[in-house]
Amino acid sequence: MGADIGVTGLAVMGANLARNLARNGFTVALHNRSVARTDSLLNSYGHEGNFVRTETLAELVESLERPRKVLIMVKAGGPVDAVIDELTPLLEEGDIIIDAGNSFYEETRRREEALREKGLHFVGVGVSGGEEGALNGPSIMPGGSRESYDSLGPMLEKISAKYHGEACCAWVGTDGAGHYVKMVHNGIEYADMQVIGEAYDLMRSLAGLEPATQAGVFREWNTTDLASYLIEITAEVLEQEDELTGRPLVDVIVDSAGQKGTGRWTAISGLEVGSPVTAIAESVFARSISSQRDLRAETSRVFSAGINEAITASELYGEDDAQQDFVEDVRKALYASKLVAYAQGLDMLVAAGEEYGWDLDLKSIASLWRAGCIIRADLLDTIMKAYDVPAAQRPKNLLLAEEFTEALNECLPAWRRVVAAAATYGVPAPVFSSSLAYYDSLRRDRLPASLTQGLRDYFGAHTYQRVDKPGTFHTRWSQDRSEAEV
Amino acid sequence: MGADIGVTGLAVMGANLARNLARNGFTVALHNRSVARTDSLLNSYGHEGNFVRTETLAELVESLERPRKVLIMVKAGGPVDAVIDELTPLLEEGDIIIDAGNSFYEETRRREEALREKGLHFVGVGVSGGEEGALNGPSIMPGGSRESYDSLGPMLEKISAKYHGEACCAWVGTDGAGHYVKMVHNGIEYADMQVIGEAYDLMRSLAGLEPATQAGVFREWNTTDLASYLIEITAEVLEQEDELTGRPLVDVIVDSAGQKGTGRWTAISGLEVGSPVTAIAESVFARSISSQRDLRAETSRVFSAGINEAITASELYGEDDAQQDFVEDVRKALYASKLVAYAQGLDMLVAAGEEYGWDLDLKSIASLWRAGCIIRADLLDTIMKAYDVPAAQRPKNLLLAEEFTEALNECLPAWRRVVAAAATYGVPAPVFSSSLAYYDSLRRDRLPASLTQGLRDYFGAHTYQRVDKPGTFHTRWSQDRSEAEV
Repeated sequence: MGADIGVTGLAVMGANLARNLARNGFTVALHNRSVARTDSLLNSYGHEGNFVRTETLAELVESLERPRKVLIMVKAGGPVDAVIDELTPLLEEGDIIIDAGNSFYEETRRREEALREKGLHFVGVGVSGGEEGALNGPSIMPGGSRESYDSLGPMLEKISAKYHGEACCAWVGTDGAGHYVKMVHNGIEYADMQVIGEAYDLMRSLAGLEPATQAGVFREWNTTDLASYLIEITAEVLEQEDELTGRPLVDVIVDSAGQKGTGRWTAISGLEVGSPVTAIAESVFARSISSQRDLRAETSRVFSAGINEAITASELYGEDDAQQDFVEDVRKALYASKLVAYAQGLDMLVAAGEEYGWDLDLKSIASLWRAGCIIRADLLDTIMKAYDVPAAQRPKNLLLAEEFTEALNECLPAWRRVVAAAATYGVPAPVFSSSLAYYDSLRRDRLPASLTQGLRDYFGAHTYQRVDKPGTFHTRWSQDRSEAEV
Repeated sequence: MGADIGVTGLAVMGANLARNLARNGFTVALHNRSVARTDSLLNSYGHEGNFVRTETLAELVESLERPRKVLIMVKAGGPVDAVIDELTPLLEEGDIIIDAGNSFYEETRRREEALREKGLHFVGVGVSGGEEGALNGPSIMPGGSRESYDSLGPMLEKISAKYHGEACCAWVGTDGAGHYVKMVHNGIEYADMQVIGEAYDLMRSLAGLEPATQAGVFREWNTTDLASYLIEITAEVLEQEDELTGRPLVDVIVDSAGQKGTGRWTAISGLEVGSPVTAIAESVFARSISSQRDLRAETSRVFSAGINEAITASELYGEDDAQQDFVEDVRKALYASKLVAYAQGLDMLVAAGEEYGWDLDLKSIASLWRAGCIIRADLLDTIMKAYDVPAAQRPKNLLLAEEFTEALNECLPAWRRVVAAAATYGVPAPVFSSSLAYYDSLRRDRLPASLTQGLRDYFGAHTYQRVDKPGTFHTRWSQDRSEAEV
């Protein structure tokens, strides 16, 4: 009997996935460019299950049961192509190459097409949950052919995270769909972290709540409908005291967050498929601004006067009640903004599905995110239920799901108060306010885009449609201003 | 003597540029795939100057003085490549091909490189001003080699728009720089139109000002520091009465604006170069939302209750004074938001310059936009002056320019009131509010990104920097929570 699966690339993520597979009873053939790493893994964890040691990709391939399954976990980009090029001649029709790294979905689409022509299955798999998830159960989002999932799926489901016993792994769609869904997960993660940051900043700047006190607030919030991994660890981080200075750690960490990865890809793809992912884009931009530290330092000096910076907690929230009320307002604003981020992320999946020919199942996708990944939360279970209805009854947008309309209505007055306070007192809350503007735009049956269209017709003869009859029209602005049908 | 320049592609834009050249004393050789169009141009406008009629590209090339200059004005994409492919073998070293269409800058970069290897100059030229501008003087943004500008520049400057006698044409940078600058111009144009739309919507929704009344408001604004072509034509559009129904035309036009072009490219490029162009991105997204008409119709039914829709002009702005005050507040909010859009657009140019190796001169670029193009405005002259100082004194960001800091401080309280009112009463003002959040982010020397970094270190060991000493650090969150330098 040969091995069930081969894993090549045994850095932490690859090693942990290999161990996870072995612990779940699969025989795992191991390969790494430098054999030392293979041996080190075997020395430390060889007892955890059945491993097969190999020194070359040829040996790795030889050791496998058919159809062969080779999981690649190397750096995205060129290294993935290099391994594929070396593997391809060693494989036979029906064999499966799995890329479990953070590849860009367009590259996955290209690779899948090229390998499909050679009779091989190429499966781009989104894996979320970091090192710990890889070892103990990640959220797994496989793409590739439906056929490949028949033999691969059961293995992946077995090693995946479980939400009340249900595997957080399911085939999401052909070619690059797996990596795409993982990318959108990360985009939502950007927004999720940004709204937490805005909540923290508002409570600190306007209600004077110190990080340690806020740890308690977030811990309490984790018992509400906000309950999630990120809220949970926010409490941990805010509580942390810097051992060197005794100050809150969060005050010692440099306030620059990078944005070169999947968050940026998500915002770009949202623009490309014409989906308004304002929360994700604003989160990416917020990170850009955070990186402009010199500019901020200078701007803060120039614009220190004439703004509402002097507001202090005691002025605004002098009474205990008022402070508590504000905290509860912020909680509701956070929840509503978070819902918008999810609604936009799911909308984007639908738009991308149409663009790339994927029949994405939002119910199933929400189910994959319930455990194992960074955005894991009970909220995902509710989202899943919102889509667990016959197609005709599925909400056009998450905000329209029965499960959420009432909650939104309940949060709305608080959300408005918080965004207005942020604007009034000068605390930046780009995603809180952008999400509210999105909601307010969506519930408008008339938007000023009609004026935009009028202007475009004026300066560029771009034409417009009328609300009362079909056709395309142009006003002869520079002549007698009569209307022509064109 | 041969012709000074050849123009191929004689649809309206090409024909008008050819006529503009001829009217300015240049001998223009004409070519079009179908000769009928060439003849039609000659029949109608042949008297305007010296034209040379040609039937083939070979004939066109033959008719030209050296170095030959062939201006292509065909549809962006494949057609441009097709013409280039046909032209290339007919030309000689040092000849110049000019693409004056709306090409994507990456394509211009690719074409320039390919033609440079063949000894030809390829000049991507951004042209703004529509059909009328092309005929009477557009804003012209040429890229390509500095060398090519020596012979081409004087012609382009002659046919360009003039701002108090100064040509709105100057070499902006190598290869795709011209098309890039034109793209950013269009991105700013998106934002410019969106903030006008938000101002109109707020005044109508919250102060009950009907379109015809607002025409007067915009006309008045056009005498303030908002004075610009777009403000001017907004008055014209708002004043227009629909001849069929007698209603304001703006109420009859369908409120869906497309966003497939340069605005989207600009937002994507902003993300790619890591520049926070929130105003442009929100404007693109606002157009996306405007196109989701069915979803908006449904959402407006579901969320009609529990919001502040019932606020009417009389309740909010019952007194004449209050209404006037609000209008003035909106004007200031519009001006401040517009400044942010320009600041972001110029920042993006700097970032792109670093990315693509262009030494973009913001002063010169602002000067090109002062006349001829859609965003033309006196404001551009002030922006130009802000950068007309020795390099060391140039503002890091437009908002820091002396010319604008005072204006911003003066607008700020109004800007805050308007954004707060929009949030409170449920009128979407995505760019007003996003721009304010950008301003408030920029003037913060500490942002909650430190919490984001703490979270990322917690769940993914992404490490962080400290404010008090160099190095890269990680807290051992799952162990004893001590800090390690890594």
